[in-house]
Amino acid sequence: MDFATYFPIWDKLTPAQQKKIEDATYFREVPKGMVLHSGETNCLGIVLIESGQLRAYSISSEGREVTLYRLFEMDTCIFTASCAMPNIMFDMVIEAEKDSEVMVIPPDVYNAVLMESAPLANYHNQVISSRFSDVMWMMEQIMWKSFDKRLAAFLLEESALEGTQSLKITHEKIANHMGTAREVVTRMLKYFQNEGLVKLTRGAIELVDEKRLRALQED
Amino acid sequence: MDFATYFPIWDKLTPAQQKKIEDATYFREVPKGMVLHSGETNCLGIVLIESGQLRAYSISSEGREVTLYRLFEMDTCIFTASCAMPNIMFDMVIEAEKDSEVMVIPPDVYNAVLMESAPLANYHNQVISSRFSDVMWMMEQIMWKSFDKRLAAFLLEESALEGTQSLKITHEKIANHMGTAREVVTRMLKYFQNEGLVKLTRGAIELVDEKRLRALQED
Repeated sequence: MDFATYFPIWDKLTPAQQKKIEDATYFREVPKGMVLHSGETNCLGIVLIESGQLRAYSISSEGREVTLYRLFEMDTCIFTASCAMPNIMFDMVIEAEKDSEVMVIPPDVYNAVLMESAPLANYHNQVISSRFSDVMWMMEQIMWKSFDKRLAAFLLEESALEGTQSLKITHEKIANHMGTAREVVTRMLKYFQNEGLVKLTRGAIELVDEKRLRALQED
Repeated sequence: MDFATYFPIWDKLTPAQQKKIEDATYFREVPKGMVLHSGETNCLGIVLIESGQLRAYSISSEGREVTLYRLFEMDTCIFTASCAMPNIMFDMVIEAEKDSEVMVIPPDVYNAVLMESAPLANYHNQVISSRFSDVMWMMEQIMWKSFDKRLAAFLLEESALEGTQSLKITHEKIANHMGTAREVVTRMLKYFQNEGLVKLTRGAIELVDEKRLRALQED
């Protein structure tokens, strides 16, 4: 078991702290579909994913599941220990989305080290911040519902009008056209770029995958 | 300046750490409407609210502001130092909603103590967790859009049918009526109670402000 893979700060723990965690950690196989955490289940602990995939989701009032984020091999799942985390006042469900193999650190052992170790507490902070960022992104997706479609449609139309795949238009101008703020346009364009739909260069937006932009528009 | 009010773990910092923070902290008056933090503004630092009120919000693609949470006297605002927080990958705007008086701890000084102090890092965790909980609540509100209206309508109808303002009905039963989960009903009823609309007692739900329930239903 290579704890240093999961905890970049592993070598900043004392030998006693390392031993405490090593001695308490146990292996568990989690079949696809198994719920590791929900409002009702017990407090499992910190889950280190050796293989497989976990999904965290909320349930809407209509019973619809809304995926908050996914965790993969080498990720650390902390909300399975939320019982031991003060001020966490929400529920989410964490479920194995694929057959998974995980290591579990019991919450009391983890917490004991967390309380006395500044490196671990700061690392824990980073993990919460990542999950917070995931959820904020998801929330913005919900708030901006269909903005991706509208922006894809705008880019395609502009490209057709100008007869080029390289649009010389500022984010500011697009924002004015679409009745939104420049930041919103910039953020979505960056997302498009990450998804391989456009390429952003100085002063231009290049459409690199018109087919998928079209699919997105019509989605 | 009474730091112990803002940091319950103040006496667990070393005298040197306390001095470092005390020496660097400065006072600032923030007029209503002033933006303390946004994607573009500089990284102010940790803000301790002596008086006034701050509001954190996101901006939707239609330019609509969505309030994420509010902070009041004695609260600590950490996202004004998000530049110094690894893995925070989202923007929010933080604005003075009333004329406010705040103390500011510069981000570098705060971070230096954070990195070496387990008590401060664990306290910082709790503050992030609270804000995370606020945002999750907001997100559920968006996901559950109109569930408050539906529940208000149900309670008023039930009250009219039974000829009483004290409804003897379980949350489970309401959930079945409304096609949702018991937890969803319980959470919204608790929210109603906080807002002074109902009073929850053992085995009964009392409608204490029928007028506002009616307004909510018709909103």
